[in-house]
Order: sequence, then C-alpha cells, then structure tokens
Amino acid sequence: MPLPDHARSAVIESVYPEIDAGRYPVKREVGATFEVWADILLEGHDALAAVVKYRRWNETAWRETSMRYVDNDRWCGAFVLVENTSYEYTVEAWRDAFASWRQEMEKRLAARQDVASELLEGRRLIVQAAERASGGDAERLRYVAERIGAAPDQQAAAALAVSAEVAVLVARYPDRSASTVYDRILEVVVERERARFAAWYEMLPRSQGTVPCRSATFDDCTARLPEIRAMGFDVVYLPPIHPIGRSYRKGSNNALVAGPTDPGSPYAIGAEAGGHKAVHPDLGTLEDFRRFVAAANALGMEVALDFAVQCSPDHPYVREHPKWFYHRPDGTIKHAENPPKKYEDIYPLNFSCEAWRELWQEMMSIIDFWIAQGVTTFRVDNPHTKPVAFWRWLIEEVQRERPDVVFLSEAFTRPKMLKLLAKAGFSQSYTYFTWRNFKAELTEYFTELTETDVKEYLRGNLFTNTPDILPFILQQGGRPAFKMRVALAATLSSVYGIYNGYELCESTAIPGREEYADSEKYAYKVWDWDRPGNIKEYIARLNQIRQAHPALQRYDNLRFYHADNDNVLLYGKATPDKRDVILVAVNLDPFEAHESRIVVPLEAAGIGPGEKYVAHELIADAHHLWEGAEQHVRLDPQVEPAAILHLQGWPSKDYESPCF
Amino acid sequence: MPLPDHARSAVIESVYPEIDAGRYPVKREVGATFEVWADILLEGHDALAAVVKYRRWNETAWRETSMRYVDNDRWCGAFVLVENTSYEYTVEAWRDAFASWRQEMEKRLAARQDVASELLEGRRLIVQAAERASGGDAERLRYVAERIGAAPDQQAAAALAVSAEVAVLVARYPDRSASTVYDRILEVVVERERARFAAWYEMLPRSQGTVPCRSATFDDCTARLPEIRAMGFDVVYLPPIHPIGRSYRKGSNNALVAGPTDPGSPYAIGAEAGGHKAVHPDLGTLEDFRRFVAAANALGMEVALDFAVQCSPDHPYVREHPKWFYHRPDGTIKHAENPPKKYEDIYPLNFSCEAWRELWQEMMSIIDFWIAQGVTTFRVDNPHTKPVAFWRWLIEEVQRERPDVVFLSEAFTRPKMLKLLAKAGFSQSYTYFTWRNFKAELTEYFTELTETDVKEYLRGNLFTNTPDILPFILQQGGRPAFKMRVALAATLSSVYGIYNGYELCESTAIPGREEYADSEKYAYKVWDWDRPGNIKEYIARLNQIRQAHPALQRYDNLRFYHADNDNVLLYGKATPDKRDVILVAVNLDPFEAHESRIVVPLEAAGIGPGEKYVAHELIADAHHLWEGAEQHVRLDPQVEPAAILHLQGWPSKDYESPCF
Repeated sequence: MPLPDHARSAVIESVYPEIDAGRYPVKREVGATFEVWADILLEGHDALAAVVKYRRWNETAWRETSMRYVDNDRWCGAFVLVENTSYEYTVEAWRDAFASWRQEMEKRLAARQDVASELLEGRRLIVQAAERASGGDAERLRYVAERIGAAPDQQAAAALAVSAEVAVLVARYPDRSASTVYDRILEVVVERERARFAAWYEMLPRSQGTVPCRSATFDDCTARLPEIRAMGFDVVYLPPIHPIGRSYRKGSNNALVAGPTDPGSPYAIGAEAGGHKAVHPDLGTLEDFRRFVAAANALGMEVALDFAVQCSPDHPYVREHPKWFYHRPDGTIKHAENPPKKYEDIYPLNFSCEAWRELWQEMMSIIDFWIAQGVTTFRVDNPHTKPVAFWRWLIEEVQRERPDVVFLSEAFTRPKMLKLLAKAGFSQSYTYFTWRNFKAELTEYFTELTETDVKEYLRGNLFTNTPDILPFILQQGGRPAFKMRVALAATLSSVYGIYNGYELCESTAIPGREEYADSEKYAYKVWDWDRPGNIKEYIARLNQIRQAHPALQRYDNLRFYHADNDNVLLYGKATPDKRDVILVAVNLDPFEAHESRIVVPLEAAGIGPGEKYVAHELIADAHHLWEGAEQHVRLDPQVEPAAILHLQGWPSKDYESPCF
Repeated sequence: MPLPDHARSAVIESVYPEIDAGRYPVKREVGATFEVWADILLEGHDALAAVVKYRRWNETAWRETSMRYVDNDRWCGAFVLVENTSYEYTVEAWRDAFASWRQEMEKRLAARQDVASELLEGRRLIVQAAERASGGDAERLRYVAERIGAAPDQQAAAALAVSAEVAVLVARYPDRSASTVYDRILEVVVERERARFAAWYEMLPRSQGTVPCRSATFDDCTARLPEIRAMGFDVVYLPPIHPIGRSYRKGSNNALVAGPTDPGSPYAIGAEAGGHKAVHPDLGTLEDFRRFVAAANALGMEVALDFAVQCSPDHPYVREHPKWFYHRPDGTIKHAENPPKKYEDIYPLNFSCEAWRELWQEMMSIIDFWIAQGVTTFRVDNPHTKPVAFWRWLIEEVQRERPDVVFLSEAFTRPKMLKLLAKAGFSQSYTYFTWRNFKAELTEYFTELTETDVKEYLRGNLFTNTPDILPFILQQGGRPAFKMRVALAATLSSVYGIYNGYELCESTAIPGREEYADSEKYAYKVWDWDRPGNIKEYIARLNQIRQAHPALQRYDNLRFYHADNDNVLLYGKATPDKRDVILVAVNLDPFEAHESRIVVPLEAAGIGPGEKYVAHELIADAHHLWEGAEQHVRLDPQVEPAAILHLQGWPSKDYESPCF
C-alpha cells in the first residue's frame, strides 16, 4: 500500500440517509427539511467543524449548511428541499484549529496557567483567518489581532482572544486546506407532495356508462368525476385505454375464446387502430381523452394511466418491429407463457434483444406522448418482468425533464424485487397490504415499511382491491370488512387506493379464488353507483379526515401501540411538532365486536402524565375526556370497525390575563 | 441519464460480509471456510447461476466457486482460506439460459404439451455450449445434440435433453457474455489462528527479578517463562523495553519529580542509549532480548512488544528530527498536554507535520526492526491519538510482507473510534470488558461485539486488568472477584489477557481510583510469585479447558441464555457441528452465593427434548445427569464463582450389533 497522498485525518462514515453506499437515491417531497447525519471522527482531542454540501443535480457549485455535533461522534446538518428536482449531497469536515486552541485555552485560563506562548499561537490563527477573510471581517480580525498583541496583560489579551465574537468571526473563514470530503456523492429525489399524499380511485373506463353491452366513453367517465371527487379522491387511475387486439382475444371470465361481442382484456394492447399511443375507438378520441383529463384537473384531480409494456399479436409493433419480440426457431413470435399456462393474446417484448436501445427509446416515447396529453402519473404494470436497469434509466430520464411525473410500481412479486424497483426510482409501490389482515402481520410489515431504511425509498400505496384481487377478507367479511380495510388503508399510509366497485362493497368472487366473478376486465358492465349498502359517505368521511389532519398526510410517522386484545390494532401518527396527533384503533375481525384495554402513547402525543385530554373520534364525531395512558375501546364492526381519535391535551391554567 | 452500455439485467446486492461498502476488509483466520452471501435478482422467471470470485491480493486471475440458491433471492458460496494472506472477493451472476429452458420444459412435459419448437431451442443451447466447451465435453455435447435431433419421437428427445447428465455438462460451459459482476471488490484479511485464539500475559520486565531496588533483566524474564507457560499462556507481552528519558522523569506513584534512583515510566521512551530501536541497558542487550524471545518460542509462546509512538525529551529523534514534533511560537518543542494536565516527560509526534512521509516511514522501520528480532505481535499504545490513515497504511504495508504479524489496538476511547481502528486493520482490540461487570451490560456489550457486523472486523482481547487499570470490582471483591473476572475473560472471548500481579490477586489501589498503589510503572518491584492466596492453578485450569474445547477457541459463537437470577450470567459456545458444546454460568456478585433456575439451550446443544445429557463441570470435574431445559445452579463465590459445563447428549440405543 503506497503512502496516502495527504495526511488528512478526519474520517467520515455512517452517513444517513444512504442506500447501498449511494447506489440508489433516497426520496423526499418539496418543502421537506432534509437532515443529513454522519459519524465524524478525528484522532486525539481536537475540535472539528463540518458542513453538508448540496446542489441540484445539474449544478456544479456546492451550497453548504453547517453541521452541529449531536452526540457520540455523530453530526447533523439540514437544508430545505425547495424544488421539485433531484439534489446531490455529501459531507465535508476539517480539524478546527482555532476552536481546538480556544477550548484548550479556556481550560488553561481556568487553571490559571501562564498562557504567553498560547496567546501568540491564537493571534497567529486570527491573523491567518484575516488573510482568508475579506472586507470588514478581514479588517476586524486584523484589528482584534493587534489589540491582543497590545493588551496590557495576559488576562485582557486572553479575554479578547477567547471571546464569542472572535470565535464566530474566525469560524467564518476556516482553513479547509486539509479537509476531508466524504468519498461518495449521494442523491435525494424530491417529488411533489402527491407522490406521498393522495387517494387513488381506479376506474375501468368501459364500465362507467349506463347502456348495457356497450363500451362507455370518456364522456361517461367525465360524468362520473364529480361523484369521485365528492368521495375525496385525488387521482383517477385508468387501466389501459388503448385499442385491444382481436387475435386470441379472451372472452368473459377469461374464457379462452371470445364471443363476437366480447371486448377483450384491456391489457392485450394494440390493434389496427393503433398501439400504446392510441385510444380505443369505443372510448372516444384523443381529444375526448384530453377533455376528460382537463375535467379531472378542473376538479382538483389528476389522471393516472397504466403503462403495460406488452402487445397483442395485432399491435403495430409486431409488424413494424418484429425484432423487439421473442422468436421461435421457426421465426414465429412467441406469446407470453408461464408453463404450462399460455397467454396467446399477449406478446412480451424482449428488453435484451439486439435492438434494445431502439426499443427502450420507443418505450420512453410512449411516456412522453401521454405527458403531452396532460398525464403526470403512471401506474406501471408488472415492472418486475422487465430489467430493473430499464426502469432506472426511464424514470430518471423522464424526471430530469419532468420532475412532476409520478410512477407507481405494481410489483406484486418477491419482497426483494419489490424493494429493488422502489430503489430504482418508482415514486410509489404496491405492497402486500392487500393480503395482510391480522395484527402480528400488519404490525411487522408496516414496521418494516415505515421504521427501517425502506422508508427512505419506498412509499407504499395501499390498494384495498384491484381488478385482479378481491381478497378473501372482503369476500367473507361483507360491508364491515369493506369499511375496516379502507379505514386501514387510508390511515396506515398517506397514499392509498380503491378499485371501482369497492365503494359498493362488490364481493362476488369466482368460488375459491381471489378474483372477481364476471370481471369487467373481460366484459361490459353497468354499475348502479348508488346501490344500497354502499360506503361512499364513509369513504368521503375518511378522505375529509385525511385532508384535515396533517399527521395522516405523512408517511413515515406510523407507530404501533399496545392493545391487550389481539383483534384490536392500535397505531398512531403525529406531526413532528405534536400539534396534530391521531390515534387509530381498528377491530380486525369483521364478524364480531371486540373490546380492549389500550395504552395511549401520552409522550408521543405531547400529553403530560397527569393531564386530561380530549379524544375526539372523528368518524362518529364523538368526544371523550380521558386521563392517563390506560383506556378502553369497544369496536362493533356492524357499527364502526375503526375509531380515528384526534388527541388534544387540555392544558391546565391558573389564570389568564383579563381582557380589560 | 444516458442509456446503459449494455442490457445486462442481473442485480447483485446486499453482499455479506461487506464493511462500509468494502471500504474496510473483514477478518478471518487460516483454515476457515469463508462464506459469501448475496441477493441476486433478475426480472421475470428465468433461472440464474452465480459464482464467488476470489484471489490473493497479489494475484490478477480470479478463482471461482459456485454459489447455491438458499432462499428469498439469497445465494451463498464458500471457499477455504488456506493461506495467511489477504484475499479479494466478489460475486458474478448470469441468466442461465439452459436451466431456464429446462425448468420450463419439465413443466411442459408434465402438461403433455407439444414441445417440437422447444426441442429445437434446447438443441441449439446444447450446440452453443459445445462451442464453448473443449475436449471430451465438447464431443459429448455435440453427440447429445445429434441424438436429440435423431430421436425417434419427442418423448425420447425430451428425456435426453432434460437429463441430469446434460444439465451438468451444459452448466460447465455457461454463456457469461451478459453476466453481471458485482461492482465492488471486497477483501478478507486472513490472519493466523493466534490472532483469534490466545491467552496473553503482560509482564513488566523490570519487575521480574528478585533483588529489590534494581531492575530485573531479560534473563530474569526468561527465568519466569516456564511458570507462565505452566499457567497456560501463549503470548508474553512486554510494555516498552526501550531506554527511558531523564528529563522530567516521573517519580514513584507518578510523582512530578523523580528521585535519583527512580527508574521512570517505560512510556517516556528514548534517552542517550537510544530510542525505539534500542533496549534499556538495565534490561540487558539486544542479544539478551533475542535469547528471551527464543526461550519463549521454545516453550510454545511468543513475545508481544509495545509500540508506543511518543518520545521523551531525550529521545534521539528530538535532536535528529525536530521537525517531527509540535513547536511553540518560540521554536521550542511542545510536550504532551490534556489541559490543564501537562505531561512534560513526553513529546508527542506530529503525524501531519510537513515531513509526515519521512516520519511515517520511520515508524514503520521500528516495526520492521523488531520483526527482525523475532517479534511477531505488537500491542499499540493509544492508537486513537494518531491518524487512522496512518494505522491503515502501516498495518497493511507490514502484513503484505509479513502476514503473520498481529497488531493489538489499545484504543480505550470513544466507541466509534475504537471500532474504526479495528476496521482500519488492527487484528485485535482492547474492549470495555474491563469495566463491564453486571448482567445487562455484559449481555448488551458482548451481543454487539459477537452478533453484529462488528464481529467481522473486531476481535475483542479481554484484559482483566492493565498497568493503568485496577477495576473497582477487583479492589472490592477480593479473590472471588479475581476468579470470576478471569473466568469471564477466558470464556466470553477466545482471546484474553491478564497483567502480572493478577494471579496474585494484587488489589492495592490508590484510594478512590482505579489505579495500582506503588505501581511498578514508576518503581522497581519484587514480587513473590507464589504468595498465598494466588490463583495460578485456577488460571492454569481455565487455560487447559480452553485448549481442550474448540468451542472456546472460536470468537463469534457466543450466545446468551436465560437465568432467572440477575446475578447469574448464563452463556454458551458451541462448534458449528455441535460436537463441542460449552455452557457457562457465572455468579457476578463476588460477595454472596446465588442460585438460579437456568434454561439450557437444548437445540443449540444438539440435545433432543426428552434426551438425558451429561453436564460435566470442568473446573471442579463434577458430573451431573440432566434432562430437559430447566435446570438449577448454585454458585458460591467463596467456592467457585463460575461453572463451565461441557454438555454431551446421552443417546438412547435400542441395541448394538454384538461383537461375536
């Protein structure tokens, strides 16, 4: 090992946040205060100084903010993420010669030692700082140095040299010639707030109409927007709206052969009328789609589109770019398979084909096309079947130009791949929430999502159901289960979604499977959006509560608390200043009422041990006056399966200034 | 973000072991099997193959060992560390086209699908493998491909194509043209076994004689070696043996002014007779020292020297290299200080001085000098007051030439600096064991040391006492405490040490402090090494037990178990094959007897739930026949404060083959 090229000695390590040594960025949202932590070590007893350096990804000059010493060699600095962009950050530290001198000087003075030699040293350090300074500061430092030299006695000279004013002034012009810069440049992707806080409503456009056996249109969809907005949703997400292939089209209930009037799966994308950049003629024109987007925007909502990278055999790509597909030895194109299952209506694209560069660029052009139509959010279908490197490239490339574009990963796959896709850039991810029903599994899973490193890169978008998944708990638990599961989704995460029909408590399944019977994925359907037993008002109430309570708009502030009864899940969310504190108790059993002793986290709620407090239940708008941590809840799923309590201390006052 | 330069898609992450993204090496010992773990992910459902690549630090070509799939996208590969050197390692993975084809083929065959096209694909893959193969394998592969083509029917062709023989043969010649190599090269430093398993005896050479008020000699030290060996020690460690400065020499009990006959602190290194490469004339000559080393070696022990990087004002360096020191504004050299304390007998070296390269090289030449005298182990004094980068450079540079050299860090300093020095290369580290006395603190501390990443780079050498530290527990607990603390040291870690006098239960302290009264650090001393009350036989027994039990020779196999009584610490160590299982129960209270229900870890001990087993207490050589996990111990510190139990199952047999 050759000698190092310098004798710099500060060591910077354990920087936080940092994902896999900076291989992946962390995520935040505009307006957040971003804290950077680091262990900074130096041999011996000298003082250190440190800064966080940061810049927008396309800047070259660093900005800096100073770090403060916290404890146990750990330092922290923070800056505000003002822009919807990507920032780079790192840490720099150096031996602070003047602060070291000053802290030793103070000990010497306290011990009444002779400090003649030390005063000369201090003066020299001040003069050197003056050389690095300019303007008034330089003058002032030189003046101070002179006065130290001219002081009548050691005591007077020392008092000036160790004064706070001089310390502040010298610290402004540190000697950083031997500073250590952390050897990794890290990145934080700053997205807009809706990447973290939003309620999604998934609607299959063809089923939004009123005429049976016929496709609805974008205008029918537009007509439904006020009702969806009234429920409190922010994002309307549409499964693919493109022309649907004819070859091997699937019939009703995923039948192998379609009848002549069957519309086919919207995921079999591409037909004569076009591919990923076209709309299904039955839905209307591109112009109609743009009107739909504008109508949603006018109501304060945005439209999310599906990005499903696959083609029907009738997709124009098949004719124009056969080399993008997989081929059999006889030259024909391979359909999708998961042996022994065959999906003959779908051709997967080969992302590693020889022309992969051309294919990847074309995929990006699809995103660009829809951005041009006003779409700013994409839900990506099955991203785990395409190379992670592709997503990394695509999302970064898109967001460099359009940092407001949000990507949701539908990676219902193995846990590490699900997380890897989030690291690779997806703004949000589907999670296993859809299948997590009971206390231990919910607690374990959401603790992992919100209290470990995972929170730095993965925002879980909790879907209660999807066109592919009608969970058993909804099939069996009826309306109480529908209320319970949407209450969980809306309060466990700041971002969640439902798929249309959920508000109607639709639960007709293919027997023994978690799939909808007569799914609108393969058929036309007309819904009565006001049918009896619906929970539209309940959902609206949940979304109102989310809007009114900043604690529910944050993602990584979820904490679980103790309830004696294992059927009762207790958790809370609070803003950092504890001005908004929410405690949620949910009966996870959709069949029977349960009661439980619960332990209210008084400290996390900012409530003193002997202080009375109001627990305002927000769904039923009921107030309780409580004191102490031990309380009791009873939750009857037939009445309300969840209690959302807003906690507020009742501060005792001895007097108030009279107003006269 | 430009397009990546290839469409390779396997992702390798979470490689273990890996310290700070490979910034620091991990440590092992010769003969160990080194396991490398990694998450390896690929989009879709294709099969993967992976290898660990490794080489000696000075080799360029990689060797490889295949990795096996474990679970949850995690892979593992292993190789044996055959040499005392440093190895580099990394991971490579690739999509395994033939294995993917084969696993899908088997599903197709089970579903009795037509596989004509798939057989053509499989044959092509076999032919391609034949092109990468050579010799007999290539011929065989070509022959197999032909036979598949010529088979009478699909069934026969498929049976051959998916046969295990063909799978093994093709796997030997994978297509790695699109493989992913992990982007970090990691390092494992392989030291000799004594870096992990050793018992240290620290002796102050000047106190090993029989004549009062006079320095002992190396010959006196040599005379003591058989006795030290009889106690079972492997390493004899000497504090500095160099000439001691006269200027500002410290007197007895660290008095500011020395009397004319006071010998001074051995840490005030350097005088007219020489510096760090000389021996104190009172101890003898370099030749005498070499004889001492040879005598130790002949007894199976080795000699460790202190490396204390500091100088007395009389050190030749002060005259020859004044620029290596710190200077006052008036040009005089600064002594060591920790204001308001002054250490006028010591000049620290300035590792960041302008001539730092020269200074660092000279420091290394000191190590080289003593290696040439037969020393292979160095205990480094206060490494945390010198730059970490210096140690990193020095240790790596020394070990590249002489990998058998072991370095012990005496970093009694802040926890992160202590660990950082271990990461930087020290083979062993002093720990806070010396001040950890009670159950919760011992459990917490040793769990951190042996069950977290720390175990990968830090080997704790547990010293019961040092010339500077006579812990309160020894001052107050008497002989029972001395037995208890050395039993803990000898069984909690595979490497531990005592400082001479411990075996005599010497506990005379400066009142109110953890320091020895009349310390031999500042005075001549004559000990009666057989004085009444000594625990030499007890220590010898502990070391015999350590020698006889491989479980106690391992470092990271420590596990804590439950004992009801908080005065009783219960822990165990086992070899991975569970053929040697040790359970230790220690009464941490040196004053009173305690009893406790304990829970024996039957599974970790390889004992079935209903199986009887023998608990052989090794200190008193007593046997107990136990059954079940719940047992009871009683430990009277006046009798034996610790029980070291060797557990052995008593396997039930129904019959044994008769011998006639």
